Amino acid sequence: MIKKNYLLAPGPTPVPSNILLKGANETIHHRTPQFIEIAKEALDGLKYLFQTENQVFALASSGTGAMEAAVANLLSPGDKAIVVVAGKFGERWKEICESFNVDVVEVAVEWGDYIEPEELKKILADNEDAKVVFTTHSETSTGTVMDLKGIAAVVKESNAVLVTDAVSSLLAQELRMDDWGVDVIVSGSQKGVMLPPGLGFIALSEKAWKLVENSKSPKYYFDLKAYRKKYPDFPYTPAVNLIYQLKEAVEMIKNEGIENVWNRHRILADAVRNGVKALGLELLSKKPGNVCTAVKVPKEVDGGKFTKLLRDKYGVTIAGGQAHLKGKIFRIAHLGYMSKFDVIVALSAVEMGLNELGYKVALGKGVMAAEEVFLKEGV
Amino acid sequence: MIKKNYLLAPGPTPVPSNILLKGANETIHHRTPQFIEIAKEALDGLKYLFQTENQVFALASSGTGAMEAAVANLLSPGDKAIVVVAGKFGERWKEICESFNVDVVEVAVEWGDYIEPEELKKILADNEDAKVVFTTHSETSTGTVMDLKGIAAVVKESNAVLVTDAVSSLLAQELRMDDWGVDVIVSGSQKGVMLPPGLGFIALSEKAWKLVENSKSPKYYFDLKAYRKKYPDFPYTPAVNLIYQLKEAVEMIKNEGIENVWNRHRILADAVRNGVKALGLELLSKKPGNVCTAVKVPKEVDGGKFTKLLRDKYGVTIAGGQAHLKGKIFRIAHLGYMSKFDVIVALSAVEMGLNELGYKVALGKGVMAAEEVFLKEGV
Repeated sequence: MIKKNYLLAPGPTPVPSNILLKGANETIHHRTPQFIEIAKEALDGLKYLFQTENQVFALASSGTGAMEAAVANLLSPGDKAIVVVAGKFGERWKEICESFNVDVVEVAVEWGDYIEPEELKKILADNEDAKVVFTTHSETSTGTVMDLKGIAAVVKESNAVLVTDAVSSLLAQELRMDDWGVDVIVSGSQKGVMLPPGLGFIALSEKAWKLVENSKSPKYYFDLKAYRKKYPDFPYTPAVNLIYQLKEAVEMIKNEGIENVWNRHRILADAVRNGVKALGLELLSKKPGNVCTAVKVPKEVDGGKFTKLLRDKYGVTIAGGQAHLKGKIFRIAHLGYMSKFDVIVALSAVEMGLNELGYKVALGKGVMAAEEVFLKEGV
Repeated sequence: MIKKNYLLAPGPTPVPSNILLKGANETIHHRTPQFIEIAKEALDGLKYLFQTENQVFALASSGTGAMEAAVANLLSPGDKAIVVVAGKFGERWKEICESFNVDVVEVAVEWGDYIEPEELKKILADNEDAKVVFTTHSETSTGTVMDLKGIAAVVKESNAVLVTDAVSSLLAQELRMDDWGVDVIVSGSQKGVMLPPGLGFIALSEKAWKLVENSKSPKYYFDLKAYRKKYPDFPYTPAVNLIYQLKEAVEMIKNEGIENVWNRHRILADAVRNGVKALGLELLSKKPGNVCTAVKVPKEVDGGKFTKLLRDKYGVTIAGGQAHLKGKIFRIAHLGYMSKFDVIVALSAVEMGLNELGYKVALGKGVMAAEEVFLKEGV
């Protein structure tokens, strides 16, 4: 049978065809009023996505580039930073900090678990000289969401600046930069924003800019002062066609309304969780978020074989586990340009795939449980 | 009259519609054999473009990101480097080096001029401890090409590693990484390679990799050891759709043949030079290259007004001057997806534009001179 592709991994996520085609418009020169006008609309739109009045910068890089920008611009060698590590992307903060000779206070959280604001409060009290707290809003490697609002309230009371990796959470989880007082948010294009990969986003509060003024870390391409100076123009050639696409995506998101986008992700996540539980499967996360659902692979099943079967035979790309979770979990994303039948496809693929590998689950039972959620929600 | 757009600036350059549309293919997951196969073909193709057996890496960044990668991976704070500065992009090498606390020996060359291998030989002899020589193959700000082959022969005799910015020269000027012994070449997607902006390229010789092993500069996103380890996969999410486009571009270039591509650029440049000279205009460069032609703006003409008129009324985007050359030169690119009628359009626009601003040049005379070149070349 022909194999249609279903991209149900937590990034890159499916790109709507109108956005794909927008990127096929002819490349124009970036130092023209024509382009600056497009860029301004796109970048202004990012303010809405971040729920902030701060400027949001679009770097020609992946989300990791935006993470490096946060570290290199906020800190100097020898500065102390608290890094919450609850999975692969928390580890990335730690690695980047170490690469820039930052003195890391690691808060190790079990993968799948999360940190409570009260715990962080104690750690902050013990580390009054910490300049930055690095967190991961949605830890994609475990499908866990953190109480960012609560964490922000705690960090606000300290001298430290709160940085959060919202690469996967942006638009999938409620996120209000200004209202909650998150100082720095980094994100990327290929997740909730529904674009191809190639843009990293970053916004900074006034409190954060004060740290930037004193940072002595080497940087050039990611020097945010250069971006601020040129905004809404760019210091170096921007990814012109991705900026066209960003403008298009922003319009789609505004039309849907950000609360509706958040709510859609909540419903999709509920449906997936209900579906996999109905199949007798177990979630990894102690606080599952709306980005992706991490499901424990039954002991009898080879996790690598399972995701490979879905991808290569069914055309359904879900994600496996990373690092020590490799082969032990699979992750179904419900992120970005997704609606209810993407969930149905995912659950159907899981049902058939497990059975095909000899692990019996009741066909249709996961799908049924998801349908119940959708009908209850009236969507 | 409707205004068709003619992008005749030295990057971004016009993107062929088949490449634009290739980027509109659905985004697939980057950690799949399907994508890795595409990436491998695209990256292998870059070897042909660089004329090298070395791996060429495609970074999700602009060319400036690839320049930073060269500095941050080759050097440590306090290391000495010779930097040839003959324009805006030589200055960029210097700025990046200074940002990374490299001890810069600046070789200041007048803008529009170039350095002879023999001069560099003396400077190398005076700076035996210099670890790297940074050069700019085509200095886009002045339209000047350097004798890279001769420079490479000189640097090869020293302990230093030769790095060249081939962001604009790649495919427009003959460039043979391995035969000439250029240690590090950086380039970008939006010039000769005919792609939208968003990819930076870099390749390193064995001699260069030895420096990388000892480099202590902070880096993470641009850490080339991580790219080497993953090649042809990527350490961080690559710009998937641009990689599709790169594969398409490589196929086009292979079909044309790299010698033919170089020769096409030579003919186009000859025609433009002949055309502007026939109009009585003067070139800035003492050694004009095949990327773009920098023309002195006649004293009677407002250079800013001139490029603006061409862009906003005619739809013809050429470049003005940068830094102290602002308003004093205009630059016509003949770079990338360009053929003879692009040159005709450029010269016609120059003829009409100058006349419209009250500076009389003979209408059709520049076009005629270009046509003579094309007929003589038999193209």
